[in-house]
Amino acid sequence: MDAAARLASRGRPCSRPNPAVGCIIVKGGRVVGRGWTATTGRPHAEAIALEQAGDEARGATAYVTLEPCAHQSERGPACSTLLVEAGVAKVVIGAQDPDPRTAGSGVERLREAGIEVAHLPTPAVDQSLAGYLTRAALGRPHVTLKLALSLDGCIAMADGESQWITDEEARAHVHSRRAMSDAILVGGATWRYDKPRLDVRLEGLEDRSPARVLLTRGIAPDGVKVINAPQQIAQLDGVQYLYVEGGAGAAASFLAADLVDRLEIYRAPIVIGKGMPALGDIGLASLAEAHGRWALAETRQLGSDTFSAYRRTRQEA
Amino acid sequence: MDAAARLASRGRPCSRPNPAVGCIIVKGGRVVGRGWTATTGRPHAEAIALEQAGDEARGATAYVTLEPCAHQSERGPACSTLLVEAGVAKVVIGAQDPDPRTAGSGVERLREAGIEVAHLPTPAVDQSLAGYLTRAALGRPHVTLKLALSLDGCIAMADGESQWITDEEARAHVHSRRAMSDAILVGGATWRYDKPRLDVRLEGLEDRSPARVLLTRGIAPDGVKVINAPQQIAQLDGVQYLYVEGGAGAAASFLAADLVDRLEIYRAPIVIGKGMPALGDIGLASLAEAHGRWALAETRQLGSDTFSAYRRTRQEA
Repeated sequence: MDAAARLASRGRPCSRPNPAVGCIIVKGGRVVGRGWTATTGRPHAEAIALEQAGDEARGATAYVTLEPCAHQSERGPACSTLLVEAGVAKVVIGAQDPDPRTAGSGVERLREAGIEVAHLPTPAVDQSLAGYLTRAALGRPHVTLKLALSLDGCIAMADGESQWITDEEARAHVHSRRAMSDAILVGGATWRYDKPRLDVRLEGLEDRSPARVLLTRGIAPDGVKVINAPQQIAQLDGVQYLYVEGGAGAAASFLAADLVDRLEIYRAPIVIGKGMPALGDIGLASLAEAHGRWALAETRQLGSDTFSAYRRTRQEA
Repeated sequence: MDAAARLASRGRPCSRPNPAVGCIIVKGGRVVGRGWTATTGRPHAEAIALEQAGDEARGATAYVTLEPCAHQSERGPACSTLLVEAGVAKVVIGAQDPDPRTAGSGVERLREAGIEVAHLPTPAVDQSLAGYLTRAALGRPHVTLKLALSLDGCIAMADGESQWITDEEARAHVHSRRAMSDAILVGGATWRYDKPRLDVRLEGLEDRSPARVLLTRGIAPDGVKVINAPQQIAQLDGVQYLYVEGGAGAAASFLAADLVDRLEIYRAPIVIGKGMPALGDIGLASLAEAHGRWALAETRQLGSDTFSAYRRTRQEA
């Protein structure tokens, strides 16, 4: 299932408006088909994997990260129908589809046709569907806040010098994260002073530069969307994954509004001392309130910098 | 050799005034003797390991983290002589002894007796001898600066609330680090406001509480040594390992004086925002100056907190 989730991530974010789904079909211990949601959302992962498997699909087991859809559309047949027609013996799904057109009826259709259905939720599946599930559960995009920090938590020298805290490898990683997002957001001050390009500067991925959003009370520059408060991210149509890049004020207002689902921290092995702090006030009343909100999800070295991702420990998302 | 370095660390810091050394004697792929410097420095690691090995030492290989001593003293014979008398065939040493009474002559005596001598320096050896080697090279104790931080680099809420940033497991780890130190230092403000006990509260190790040192321009409380500036640590007799626990001012003055050899950071998965920063001014002129000074030496999870140690990348120590 984790392999299917990794396949799914290949579809992110180009599968929009559809969720990025992964599907692996296994027969006799051998993979006979693999698929992930194509650009613009069609074909679906299951359709691609089934086509690859051909006759081998008969009696096979399909691993799908999301419940197969139950609704036929102009853009293609329902995946649950395709799985039934292909004669698979068993379907293992990673998450139930919250889309009311499917929610449970995809599984129902499979079971009615005599197919065994099992659930196998995993953290990798949850992460690969985070944008889609957050939209469905909370009516807004999944928000990742990125911070590039010194060991003592500064984002710049006291005079604002911030190029560079982290090394090339970490900066390339940031660009790959941008390419996985539907939109990037920065605060008004960062926009004015740093004049960030906010594009993807990785060879072959230049056209993956996401939409740019500004959190400001001012007016919008050309080609940039503006919101006045973090809560307005709910109105960002077609955005499943929002990547917040700072600065300290914007980051703090998202945290204060409890609108950050994932923290991605790049930490350079440098000490600044009395520099520019990473965050403004987030409205914390006591230290106890700060605990129990974040769980380490991933950590790894990127050259001499350390990358650590923390997941907001909410029930819903 | 790394196993010998781990043995050596058992002698820290009780071996003072001697370095904590480890010795392993191997014959035919089997360990026949193990030793580490005893409390007060005698017997030496080699003497203990040789006694354990007995006749098996003949023709064996001895791994010693530090060059065996060449000087006989009232407290015992020279280890190089012991190794010759025991008839070992080969001695592998981790570091040369900077003590002028030995420096090279330990190795010389072994070679003269027909014993093969090899050098095998490793990071574990360097770390296990850090206090001794720093004293010899720089004329001062080895300094570890401890910081307990939130993800955004705060050591407390803005109002000073700091109990607790980290969890029990991390705090117990701090106590074990105290037990490995000869002295603990805090700044005057921390002493006055936090009234820290600075003792070892681990069962069975209560008597390992190190000497307490205060960095202040004020007068010394009972039983506490005072220094007025970080540079005065050179005068702390018998201290090989100094553990600096804060606060922000004391930490910054040690960093500004470039008198920190190791940074030990406990990072809790909490976000504070506009809290008390970890450090005051460390006198950095530009961001470029901050780079290339620290290298990650160790990282691990302690419950939900992350422990990371960084080594100051100096030539000498």
